[in-house]
Amino acid sequence: MIIVVCLNPALDVTHHVDAVDWGGVNRPRAVRARPGGKGLNVARTLHALGVDVLVLGLAGGITGAGVEAALRERCVPAAFTPVAGETRRTFSVVHDSKVTAFYEAGPAVSEEEFAGFRHGYEQALDGAAAVVLSGSLPPGLEPATYATLIQGAGIPAVLDTHGEALRLGAAAGAAIVKPNLAELESLTGHKLATPDEMVGAAGQLRGAQAVVVTLGPDGLLAATGDGCWRARAPAAAAGNATGAGDAVAAALTHGLVLGRPWDERLRHAAALGAATAAAPVAGEFRRQDYLGALTAVTVEEVR
Amino acid sequence: MIIVVCLNPALDVTHHVDAVDWGGVNRPRAVRARPGGKGLNVARTLHALGVDVLVLGLAGGITGAGVEAALRERCVPAAFTPVAGETRRTFSVVHDSKVTAFYEAGPAVSEEEFAGFRHGYEQALDGAAAVVLSGSLPPGLEPATYATLIQGAGIPAVLDTHGEALRLGAAAGAAIVKPNLAELESLTGHKLATPDEMVGAAGQLRGAQAVVVTLGPDGLLAATGDGCWRARAPAAAAGNATGAGDAVAAALTHGLVLGRPWDERLRHAAALGAATAAAPVAGEFRRQDYLGALTAVTVEEVR
Repeated sequence: MIIVVCLNPALDVTHHVDAVDWGGVNRPRAVRARPGGKGLNVARTLHALGVDVLVLGLAGGITGAGVEAALRERCVPAAFTPVAGETRRTFSVVHDSKVTAFYEAGPAVSEEEFAGFRHGYEQALDGAAAVVLSGSLPPGLEPATYATLIQGAGIPAVLDTHGEALRLGAAAGAAIVKPNLAELESLTGHKLATPDEMVGAAGQLRGAQAVVVTLGPDGLLAATGDGCWRARAPAAAAGNATGAGDAVAAALTHGLVLGRPWDERLRHAAALGAATAAAPVAGEFRRQDYLGALTAVTVEEVR
Repeated sequence: MIIVVCLNPALDVTHHVDAVDWGGVNRPRAVRARPGGKGLNVARTLHALGVDVLVLGLAGGITGAGVEAALRERCVPAAFTPVAGETRRTFSVVHDSKVTAFYEAGPAVSEEEFAGFRHGYEQALDGAAAVVLSGSLPPGLEPATYATLIQGAGIPAVLDTHGEALRLGAAAGAAIVKPNLAELESLTGHKLATPDEMVGAAGQLRGAQAVVVTLGPDGLLAATGDGCWRARAPAAAAGNATGAGDAVAAALTHGLVLGRPWDERLRHAAALGAATAAAPVAGEFRRQDYLGALTAVTVEEVR
């Protein structure tokens, strides 16, 4: 079983409009609401791969109840620790194939609430093969939060977050950290143009056993104890790239649990990322796209 | 007790942003969520006036539960008939004192669900002094829906809606219908510039005992069996005009139940509308603004 920690889940609401009257009243022709936040995307992808998952996190208010109900409907097992604040919404307006997004910050979490979460987390670790920690931290939690959860875990941890929480989590000994290029650049403070520069920058995430950088349509770059690789999927039909990075995190964790060698792990991760980016619905993928991409992905050792 | 019928309630979510990155990701600095839909605004205003109200309507899903919880929190009595669909959200982005709004249509309501509502409605009529029917109809309900609820009521009905539902509701013998100018113009098919033209157009709403037209900052125009009046409040500090029309509907209903003569009824309605437009939060008013406006409103007979 893989634990997926989602401390700041969201209800993602998307309005599709034909055109937007900025400053006026718009009536969307289609409305979608689904559980969101990076951790929930990871959990749904693992679930779709047939992996036994358990989502652990914090949820509050009516929006938190909505997230829990939506996960139940999708048969994704979850145990949220209740918080007094209201779980955040993200609101996206899709118009002319552009997306304008509004992200709420999430509820302020108290020390007592986090202690309640941590108690359940420690109980769940027993019998879990790996843990994924993914997404932003809600207001009130220290940047060291993921680091403390990784240190005590006793099982491999995959971390997908940004900034100080990422740096501290790597230092705590994460098995894999998965920044995207912008997040890695933000840590190093400058643009990274070549694979060499990226591998060098990955060294900043000291303590992590492996760093996998997602490069959008340019695939993945991995710096691991076993070597460095670049994986690329051929360009696919444009779908909805939201959640593609989360699919990569899910595939990397799956490969870790299965004990796949790094090149195979990356092949699956790049293929699943590409299949997810090609699907019209954020965070979903078609099995035939995934299987097709698997044979088309190239993985080459670099440096 | 006044019954307020709200067949298509909403959860109004407002994001305040300093600037909008259209096509990008925005992080609102403030988020508000409150029960919305015109009927709920009317009910909250009546409740704030100290009037005994009961909200009746249709609610479904997590959003419906959110609306019910928010009304409970505000101590506004409500009894919603459950529907299978999801109650709608409205989403508003406030930026540079402009509002961009996205209105969901609401759940499709089945005949059985409406029959369930109607049963509760008929039971509640016994002992009620008046009924307010306000707002749009959810998908699936006929334009004649309000008319059938008015015909069978046996108590005075105040109707605030638009289009065919307004015309049919007036014909069913509403005590007061309260279109705004745009709604009246839309019924007549042409612009209305003078009070004379408006009073003439109000004649199109045959069957209603009185027509009160809200003119925004220009006040109210009433065509009643007792005569025609124009009420104006002096210009107030700009607040949030959303819900000002609903405050007028609430005050008109209150005046009807109290048996106030028309000129006094209109004085209170114009004052409460102005106080609501002057308050920074949509649909709320400060008591001192209301009392201040009461003495400042002018009411003159026209024609």
